[in-house]
Amino acid sequence: MGKDKKGLILDTLRELFKEGKAGTASVSDIAARAGIAKGLIQSGGNALEKLALLMQSYRGSYVDSSLDEYLHMPQNAAIHQKSLAQILSALSGIISRIIEQGTVEGLFACDYPREYAEIIMAVFTFLLDPGIFPWGGDQYALKLKALADMLEKGLCADKGSFGFLYGAEDSFRKETK
Amino acid sequence: MGKDKKGLILDTLRELFKEGKAGTASVSDIAARAGIAKGLIQSGGNALEKLALLMQSYRGSYVDSSLDEYLHMPQNAAIHQKSLAQILSALSGIISRIIEQGTVEGLFACDYPREYAEIIMAVFTFLLDPGIFPWGGDQYALKLKALADMLEKGLCADKGSFGFLYGAEDSFRKETK
Repeated sequence: MGKDKKGLILDTLRELFKEGKAGTASVSDIAARAGIAKGLIQSGGNALEKLALLMQSYRGSYVDSSLDEYLHMPQNAAIHQKSLAQILSALSGIISRIIEQGTVEGLFACDYPREYAEIIMAVFTFLLDPGIFPWGGDQYALKLKALADMLEKGLCADKGSFGFLYGAEDSFRKETK
Repeated sequence: MGKDKKGLILDTLRELFKEGKAGTASVSDIAARAGIAKGLIQSGGNALEKLALLMQSYRGSYVDSSLDEYLHMPQNAAIHQKSLAQILSALSGIISRIIEQGTVEGLFACDYPREYAEIIMAVFTFLLDPGIFPWGGDQYALKLKALADMLEKGLCADKGSFGFLYGAEDSFRKETK
């Protein structure tokens, strides 16, 4: 995947996540952008490469801390909860497709792609939300390692193939060069 | 495990879940009750039997639908979110201990018992919350099957050993008689 294309995908996804978190995007708006993201995501790279890109942009979208502060005020809890649910639904569809691609590529074996995608997104949107659970950096990293371990075993993927989740990007880059 | 003892455990756990969901229990109150629940849970039965009991009582606590309606009103979203976070924290500690017991018993292999417990509870408290995601019965059952599949593989447990999650209780009962 070229560098420019990767940048475009990341920008589009960041916008999607920010709008979802702000609670300002309508469901159809999120769906439309998710459609664009889905098109981009499905245009090149293997399943692991696409999942890495998606997770990278999701985590990057947390950079805007003033928005996070707003969403984590008690009076905005309803908007926050709704936005997390919207993000879960929009992204689960995309991740599910990528898991299916991975099974075709022989990288994964999975009977429940949609449900696996939803479990992944429940971890990201709820357990790893910095306003709901203010985990320390070490705790956060350990949760991502455990998720990688669970997914590698659950999806029958190679050990270490989800290393991108906790920043072991070198091993991932070697595989996907 | 005797029938009376099992009933006592279930009652104690239901109280814990209801108070947690009502947002009226203080953190120390929940911790104290979780301590009681933990003591009871750790008093007999193998790890799978204890996890089945915990899940059974958790799902049973949803019977009180008037409380659920209250918590799912938008103006109560902050209390709802806080109570889900409290339940996740209190129960993760207990589930983590049970997973550790299961590794000693040779039922599981797991390097991240605490984090696995948190991922399980993120699924139950967020993805399976009927007010946040109004899944149909079939969708709900499919998510529990996928979680069982992910846990059996992730914990290196026997295939079908988490069947109690989706109601395949016969196979579970046979094992733990």
